[in-house]
Amino acid sequence: MRKIVECVPNFSEGRRPEVIDAIVDALREVPGIRVLDQHADPNHNRLVVTLVGEPEATAEAAFRGAQRAVELINMEEHQGEHPRIGAVDVIPFVPVQWVSMRDCVSLARQVGRRIAQELGVPVYLYGEAATRPERRDLAAVRKGQYEGLKAEIHLPHRQPDFGEARMHPTAGATAVGARAPLIAFNINLDTSDVTIARKIARAIRGSSGGFRDVRALGVMISDRGIAQVSINVCDYRTAPLHRVFEVVRSEASRYGVRVLGSEIVGLVPLDALVEAAEYCLRLQGFDRKQVLERRIWSTLEGEPT
Amino acid sequence: MRKIVECVPNFSEGRRPEVIDAIVDALREVPGIRVLDQHADPNHNRLVVTLVGEPEATAEAAFRGAQRAVELINMEEHQGEHPRIGAVDVIPFVPVQWVSMRDCVSLARQVGRRIAQELGVPVYLYGEAATRPERRDLAAVRKGQYEGLKAEIHLPHRQPDFGEARMHPTAGATAVGARAPLIAFNINLDTSDVTIARKIARAIRGSSGGFRDVRALGVMISDRGIAQVSINVCDYRTAPLHRVFEVVRSEASRYGVRVLGSEIVGLVPLDALVEAAEYCLRLQGFDRKQVLERRIWSTLEGEPT
Repeated sequence: MRKIVECVPNFSEGRRPEVIDAIVDALREVPGIRVLDQHADPNHNRLVVTLVGEPEATAEAAFRGAQRAVELINMEEHQGEHPRIGAVDVIPFVPVQWVSMRDCVSLARQVGRRIAQELGVPVYLYGEAATRPERRDLAAVRKGQYEGLKAEIHLPHRQPDFGEARMHPTAGATAVGARAPLIAFNINLDTSDVTIARKIARAIRGSSGGFRDVRALGVMISDRGIAQVSINVCDYRTAPLHRVFEVVRSEASRYGVRVLGSEIVGLVPLDALVEAAEYCLRLQGFDRKQVLERRIWSTLEGEPT
Repeated sequence: MRKIVECVPNFSEGRRPEVIDAIVDALREVPGIRVLDQHADPNHNRLVVTLVGEPEATAEAAFRGAQRAVELINMEEHQGEHPRIGAVDVIPFVPVQWVSMRDCVSLARQVGRRIAQELGVPVYLYGEAATRPERRDLAAVRKGQYEGLKAEIHLPHRQPDFGEARMHPTAGATAVGARAPLIAFNINLDTSDVTIARKIARAIRGSSGGFRDVRALGVMISDRGIAQVSINVCDYRTAPLHRVFEVVRSEASRYGVRVLGSEIVGLVPLDALVEAAEYCLRLQGFDRKQVLERRIWSTLEGEPT
C-alpha cells in the first residue's frame, strides 16, 4: 500500500472563478495528486481544497498552489467573513495511510521553509508542527487577522518560524501545519430545549475544560424541533468517538433527556470507527491489520503490510 | 476500486509437498491472483488456500486448481480426519469489494458447471448458491463423506447440480458455493465454570435455535483458567457482532458472570466493524462511502465510488 497524505489548503479567494481555477489547476498538475473536493465560498471569500497523494507529491502540490495564489491574490484588497492572515491562509497536512504524524510534521516544515525562501512569505508552524506550545492552536497564530498581524509581526512573540518578520506586500503570511483528520460528529437529543445542548457542549469542549481536542456547540435543529450537540472532534486519538458519545449520553441523562442518535458529516477515518467497534465489543489484542480489506489492498499492491 | 472476490478452495491433500505445490502454483499462475494464505494439515490430509482477485480471474484460478487436483489426487487412497467428498472438496466464493453475493452465486454456478463439463466431476451447489434449501448447509451436502456419497449418488435427493449422478473414479465429487466471510469471534468469561460457557453457546447457535448463521461452543482456556464462548459468525449480516456480543453478555449476567473481553481470530471484514461502530454510536444515515480510506482508494484508482 502506498503512503498517502491528505492536504487541505485554504486560499483567500472565493469569488473570482478564473483565480480559483488557476489555483486548483496548479495543485492538480502534479502527477499522482487527486483533488477529492473543492469548495469556494463567496461570503467567506475563501477556497478550501482537499487533495490526496503520496507525501512528496502532496508537498509539491501544496507549494505550487501557494505559488499561484501569491501571484494572483492581493490581501490589501481582500474582504471576507472568515479569519485569514494571507493569500495562502493555511496548509494542514493530515496522515492517512502508512504515514505518521511525524512525517506530516516534516512535510509541514519542508513546505513552510520553501514558501518563505522561494515566495518571500513569512510562515508560522501550527498544530502538531508548532514550535511553541501556544501556536498549536491556529486561532492564536491568526490572532488579529491579516491587518492585526501586519501591525504586530515585528514583536518577538509573533516572529514567524520561517522567513523574515515582515509581511509579504500582497500575500501576507501563511500558517503551515500537521493535524489529525477532523470529524464532524453531531448528537441529537430528545428535547426541544437548546439550553441543555449548550450545557452538554460546554461539558465536552476543550475551551471550557472538556476534551482538549473537541470543539462543540449546542444548536437547535428547527425543522425537526430538536436540540443538537454539534461537535468537531479535532483528534480522535485523544477524544475517541465512543468516549465523546458516552459523556454526552451521561450528561443528557442527568437532565432526563435521551440521545436520539448521532450523525457523521463528511468523511471519517477507518481507525476512528474501528476504535468504536473495539470499545463496543470489548475487543482485546486486535490489530488493524486484521481488517480483511486492508490485508487485501496491501497484498494486491504487493507492498509491506 | 476494482471488484474483488475471495475464494477459499479446500483440496484433499495435506501430506505430499509436491502435490500441494503443484496445486498452489496452478492457482497462482492466473494473472492478478494473490494467495493470501495456504495451510496444509497432515492429520486432516487437507490443503486450504485463501486467494483474492477480480471475479473472472478468481473463477479461472479456482478451475485451474481443481483441474490440477483432479489429476493428482486419488480419493480411493485418501485418508484423513476431515470430512470430504472429493479431491477438490469445496470451493466457496466470498464477496469482498464492489461485488454482491449474487455475483458470487453466479461465479459458483459458472465454475461448478465447468468442473462438471470439462473435468467430469459431479458438482453440488451449496451455501447461498444452493438450489435446494437443505443444501445451504455444507454438512448436508457432505453427509456420509466420499464413501457414503459414492453409495447414494444415484438416489434422487443426492443428484448433483451439474454433471452425471456418478462419482468421478478418482476425484469423487465437489461442492461449489457462495458465502459471507466467516468471522472467528471468541468471548471470554470471568468464570472457570465451562458449563456456563456451554449454556451460552447453546443459546446463541443456530443448531439449537439461536442465530441461524452462528456456530458456537463452550470451551475452557486452561492456561488462563477461564471459560470461553468460541464463536463462528458465518454471516455477520444476519448476526452482527454487537448483537451476538450483547446476547452473550446478557446471558452471562443471569449466571452472575461478567464478560472479560472478546477476540477476533484472523481477518474481519471492514463492514462488520463499521456496523458495530454504528450500533455503539447510534449512528444514523451513515454511508460506508464516508470512510475516508475507501474514498481515497476509489479516487486514486479513478473508478466509481
